[in-house]
Amino acid sequence: MGRTHSNAFSQVGHFFNVPFRPVLKAICARDATKAKAFAEQWGYESTETDWRKLVERKDIDLIDIASPNDTHLEIAIAAAKAGKMVMCEKPLGRSAAESIKMVEAVEKAKVPNMVWYNYRRVPAVTLAKQLIDEGKLGKIFHYRAKFLQDWTISKDLPQGGQGLWRLDVSVAGSGVTGDLLAHCIDTAMWLNGGIAKVSGMTETFIKERHHNISGKTEPVRIDDASLFLARFDNGSLASFEATRYARGHKALYTFEINGENASIFWDLHDLHRLQYFDHRDEGRTRGWRSVHITDGDHPYMDKWWVPGLQIGYEHTFIHQVADFLGAVGGGKQAAPTFREALATDLVTDAVLRSAKTGQWENAKG
Amino acid sequence: MGRTHSNAFSQVGHFFNVPFRPVLKAICARDATKAKAFAEQWGYESTETDWRKLVERKDIDLIDIASPNDTHLEIAIAAAKAGKMVMCEKPLGRSAAESIKMVEAVEKAKVPNMVWYNYRRVPAVTLAKQLIDEGKLGKIFHYRAKFLQDWTISKDLPQGGQGLWRLDVSVAGSGVTGDLLAHCIDTAMWLNGGIAKVSGMTETFIKERHHNISGKTEPVRIDDASLFLARFDNGSLASFEATRYARGHKALYTFEINGENASIFWDLHDLHRLQYFDHRDEGRTRGWRSVHITDGDHPYMDKWWVPGLQIGYEHTFIHQVADFLGAVGGGKQAAPTFREALATDLVTDAVLRSAKTGQWENAKG
Amino acid sequence: MGRTHSNAFSQVGHFFNVPFRPVLKAICARDATKAKAFAEQWGYESTETDWRKLVERKDIDLIDIASPNDTHLEIAIAAAKAGKMVMCEKPLGRSAAESIKMVEAVEKAKVPNMVWYNYRRVPAVTLAKQLIDEGKLGKIFHYRAKFLQDWTISKDLPQGGQGLWRLDVSVAGSGVTGDLLAHCIDTAMWLNGGIAKVSGMTETFIKERHHNISGKTEPVRIDDASLFLARFDNGSLASFEATRYARGHKALYTFEINGENASIFWDLHDLHRLQYFDHRDEGRTRGWRSVHITDGDHPYMDKWWVPGLQIGYEHTFIHQVADFLGAVGGGKQAAPTFREALATDLVTDAVLRSAKTGQWENAKG
Amino acid sequence: MGRTHSNAFSQVGHFFNVPFRPVLKAICARDATKAKAFAEQWGYESTETDWRKLVERKDIDLIDIASPNDTHLEIAIAAAKAGKMVMCEKPLGRSAAESIKMVEAVEKAKVPNMVWYNYRRVPAVTLAKQLIDEGKLGKIFHYRAKFLQDWTISKDLPQGGQGLWRLDVSVAGSGVTGDLLAHCIDTAMWLNGGIAKVSGMTETFIKERHHNISGKTEPVRIDDASLFLARFDNGSLASFEATRYARGHKALYTFEINGENASIFWDLHDLHRLQYFDHRDEGRTRGWRSVHITDGDHPYMDKWWVPGLQIGYEHTFIHQVADFLGAVGGGKQAAPTFREALATDLVTDAVLRSAKTGQWENAKG
Repeated sequence: MGRTHSNAFSQVGHFFNVPFRPVLKAICARDATKAKAFAEQWGYESTETDWRKLVERKDIDLIDIASPNDTHLEIAIAAAKAGKMVMCEKPLGRSAAESIKMVEAVEKAKVPNMVWYNYRRVPAVTLAKQLIDEGKLGKIFHYRAKFLQDWTISKDLPQGGQGLWRLDVSVAGSGVTGDLLAHCIDTAMWLNGGIAKVSGMTETFIKERHHNISGKTEPVRIDDASLFLARFDNGSLASFEATRYARGHKALYTFEINGENASIFWDLHDLHRLQYFDHRDEGRTRGWRSVHITDGDHPYMDKWWVPGLQIGYEHTFIHQVADFLGAVGGGKQAAPTFREALATDLVTDAVLRSAKTGQWENAKG
Repeated sequence: MGRTHSNAFSQVGHFFNVPFRPVLKAICARDATKAKAFAEQWGYESTETDWRKLVERKDIDLIDIASPNDTHLEIAIAAAKAGKMVMCEKPLGRSAAESIKMVEAVEKAKVPNMVWYNYRRVPAVTLAKQLIDEGKLGKIFHYRAKFLQDWTISKDLPQGGQGLWRLDVSVAGSGVTGDLLAHCIDTAMWLNGGIAKVSGMTETFIKERHHNISGKTEPVRIDDASLFLARFDNGSLASFEATRYARGHKALYTFEINGENASIFWDLHDLHRLQYFDHRDEGRTRGWRSVHITDGDHPYMDKWWVPGLQIGYEHTFIHQVADFLGAVGGGKQAAPTFREALATDLVTDAVLRSAKTGQWENAKG
Repeated sequence: MGRTHSNAFSQVGHFFNVPFRPVLKAICARDATKAKAFAEQWGYESTETDWRKLVERKDIDLIDIASPNDTHLEIAIAAAKAGKMVMCEKPLGRSAAESIKMVEAVEKAKVPNMVWYNYRRVPAVTLAKQLIDEGKLGKIFHYRAKFLQDWTISKDLPQGGQGLWRLDVSVAGSGVTGDLLAHCIDTAMWLNGGIAKVSGMTETFIKERHHNISGKTEPVRIDDASLFLARFDNGSLASFEATRYARGHKALYTFEINGENASIFWDLHDLHRLQYFDHRDEGRTRGWRSVHITDGDHPYMDKWWVPGLQIGYEHTFIHQVADFLGAVGGGKQAAPTFREALATDLVTDAVLRSAKTGQWENAKG
Repeated sequence: MGRTHSNAFSQVGHFFNVPFRPVLKAICARDATKAKAFAEQWGYESTETDWRKLVERKDIDLIDIASPNDTHLEIAIAAAKAGKMVMCEKPLGRSAAESIKMVEAVEKAKVPNMVWYNYRRVPAVTLAKQLIDEGKLGKIFHYRAKFLQDWTISKDLPQGGQGLWRLDVSVAGSGVTGDLLAHCIDTAMWLNGGIAKVSGMTETFIKERHHNISGKTEPVRIDDASLFLARFDNGSLASFEATRYARGHKALYTFEINGENASIFWDLHDLHRLQYFDHRDEGRTRGWRSVHITDGDHPYMDKWWVPGLQIGYEHTFIHQVADFLGAVGGGKQAAPTFREALATDLVTDAVLRSAKTGQWENAKG
């Protein structure tokens, strides 16, 4: 994620009128050689190999945490204590218990804070939010989301270490629940309100894998797949699914929301499109509209290219920085704050709990 | 369904080499005028207004039950006792308890019997079955199916009576669970084996509707929406959903199955296509294939038109009659028999039970 | 085509309220055995092996010509002289010169006559016609159509004889120009008015093929591919293309029409959908609508199944018979008459002429 | 285009290992205020208002021409004479006559030169090139391309001046022929070899528009739409079309190429996908593959994000700079050079000539 974040800080000023231009003061990584190479490639002024040094530096206003999940808690709390603004990759903590501490730290320190749930800033998804908030859909009946990948199907894939820490529960906290479902849940609650209760099931298809750090074959303790049914506070019914065993799908995050008057569908594999159905259209020509989200009246798109020319994945991070800087400039918090992100962790915790108990679980913590 | 069945019996001999040509001896309907009009339109030789008369007639070899669900039990048992072959619309009974009696009746009478789960005979779906049985997919990880409609969203729609008995629980047995999920489950178990357990949730969005028969506003007791998670016997995870409140979808039955080596997707709105992904394809050009199921080497399609020219919905019923007649001619049973259809009713019962208990329920009865 | 026509005559009364029910009096084919088998399969009352006998029979009211193109002229003229109604497969003649004689014959005899340009009766295409006639599109700028197949790519495919007469110019008259472009042109002029002039090019990719009748390798004299630019009378610009060398396309007939306010796209591989774009939709949610043409307010569809359930290829022939019978019952001519079909032959002649001269050619004959 | 080029120079070093890191020395624009604002936004070290000054500066190694077409000739020749590397937006000249002078200048000066036909560097398009060069398609039968827009339909749109010079023939040289067809032709000849001859037609739908510079209503002299048929040197047949009057399409550049064994389709509205059909696939599961071009084995994509995460429009310019720098570092020319781009201008000239003469025209100049 270091590249997407660095790119966002570099690019935001080229396309957005922001009250501050980020300065890339320092990159921190445990490996000094890699840190230096990265700094050179991206134009960082300096490097650090110990994040504590970074936190202590007076010339640093904002700490951006893009390291593995098991480091979020300690860094965020220290950064907040040092009065830095804090941005943190998702999920916030490895569990809601960790996240709560992080929320308390930034709120106590009263520092601007944000979690990188970048998919809110896909223009098509932001447009979905606008349409829902304007009441275009009417009463909501159904929400369904899934995030399908297929990159861990091979049993020869090891767990742990560089690039593979997501398979190591001690680092990641959970498997697809925290990694993929967290995105689905964040978007869902942003669009459709709070989730009241869930009934989940999980599976670990491959029980043992070679561990890159221990050098031994070890049990796999993350969830490879995670599904849950849910009831939203507004009464709508939902189903969610995430897996890394859906052959043929690389990063297929999709959601659909069905309202009384209209419905919306979006998927990450064609992120520049929004599918929209409006029952109020004349009957004979009513159909799902494939909206190419590249026009000046689409969210964020007045900053990019002429109609018809699409943007991609990394732009969502640029939008998030633009919004963050705009909020800071205006004395506001940019969403999602640590507190808002905590709500997602309470749901993922409930899903994992339900998968164990076989019961419906309260998703409010 | 009278038209789809009559059409199937009329058409089967035009396109398939079947050992018997069905003769449309009699149509039975309570309203004599309607029965006569229907007989004239479709070329039935005679009409009846009491199904008991039909069952007694010596010139009738096969009774086809296309009437509302609350009539299936009595007619099927009488027909079996009279030694007739019996075909019955799905779901077999209003509950598994009814279905069991029907199974016992046809098995005791040793008469050919079949339930009209017509979607098995969509050529694309039959091809999916062939590919799975050949092992093309490898170990199965995931199955997901949904059946989305939107025709009951208006609160002004009444319940009960002609064309609307599906909203009357006393006639239908259940709502979308028996009507739509039953199709999804039948296909799923045909393709992927038995379902071990389920966790379900249901909802009735509109609590009261005018009842066409009583003339009063009455509580709606069917399920408008029904979702469940499931575990198949082969260990794969599944989610199922049916609703009549998914704005924008008329009859969108879809299923997807993800295996270790390949995946399949199909949907009823483009029933003449099968989406197929094969991981063994060369990496750079690997992608979901949209297979246009209109070639001579596709199931049933050698009987229809030249490649590129699609068939539609009613053809699935013609295929089912062709298979039934072929089986009878060969002294075999055509699938799904009453017994096979009972397995589906056990699952739908478990879903409804789970929606009440909030527990995972055994789906084997 | 014998099957599609027979099916249409058989089925029309099951679904449409028509003033007459067709009676399948006789099937005529040169091979008596095949004729008998076909008659048995489809319920024809009798067979003939000489079409002249058929024309002489008093019990025959209508002659339907579904034989190869080189037989159309003689049969149609004889049938008209005998006072029979005449339906003829497309193209009407092998050239406009033949077609003119056929037009004169039916007009002199004042008999109902129609050419089987069945694609007008795809519900989606008929809806396109309605929308255009209502002025939904506004001024038309562009029309583009193509008909792509790939079944003659192999050089081992012979020409001539049963099933392959379309490659024999003496029987077919031309290659894809008369076979495929004729469909595109008929639809185009129906939707967008007359064609003024054309600039064409053709190609025969495989120069020699084994001839099934002569038993020798002979030059191929049909056009394998045919493209042309056109100017419509209304000023709009057009491009047309047909080929049997477009690998991956079986029968991909598509057309698109761009107007000032709206555009329409249709393709035969998903014939139950119409793509519609309306610029008057609100900007943010404007997009191509994929309209699933299965509702009661879609042309012809009130006669078929419930919304969401699609029909197929053969239904277009049933619709054509329904319209023909309705017209006859009402004392009118059903479109396209022989005269209307002649206009198409004048365009195809002009295309072939232009391909030789390298000049723009007048398309009005 | 200033932004896409500046972005490409800024970003190339962040993602590609290039032998040189571009330094943004100076931006030149006639309006000093705008130049300064642009320089500040993008980090240019200095500004100029007279391009001649830029050409004279010793600290400038490369001149990148992104100004309107009527300026290309003079700047390019001066830059070449000054020994600068020259990059030029397409089309090279307003006519082939201009382009020839530019080719002569850079070749005489022996300076690296390139024209920004950026669509070659869409990863999906580059993959198409690889597949064709590997012989995957076999003998080519057909090529078809179109570039459809709808932004000039309103008659209230003025011509001329800032942002609208593309409608002013004295600045642009031609309308859609040079603007849009040039892209189609460049890609086509790159993929499928030279074009031998063409038959074209053009139209100007709106004959007069207000001119922003003169302040008067003036005749529109550009082509609003341009279509042509073509014969490639390899014998394949082609049709091309470009228009700004295709309602519903913003920048829909598409091409399809049909070979004996396989076919390829691509479109700019979903630029991250390639449609691929391979006839050698097993018959039952053969179909068009929708390849999501986001994997490490896809051209350029090892430099971007993980599989499933798409890039957008501006990346094609980054790729072009990366290739240019790589070529310069290796002592080679990056394609397309001025000379290669001249070939495209010879075709566009022939199309415009043919539209006037009504004859087939030689496309080699």
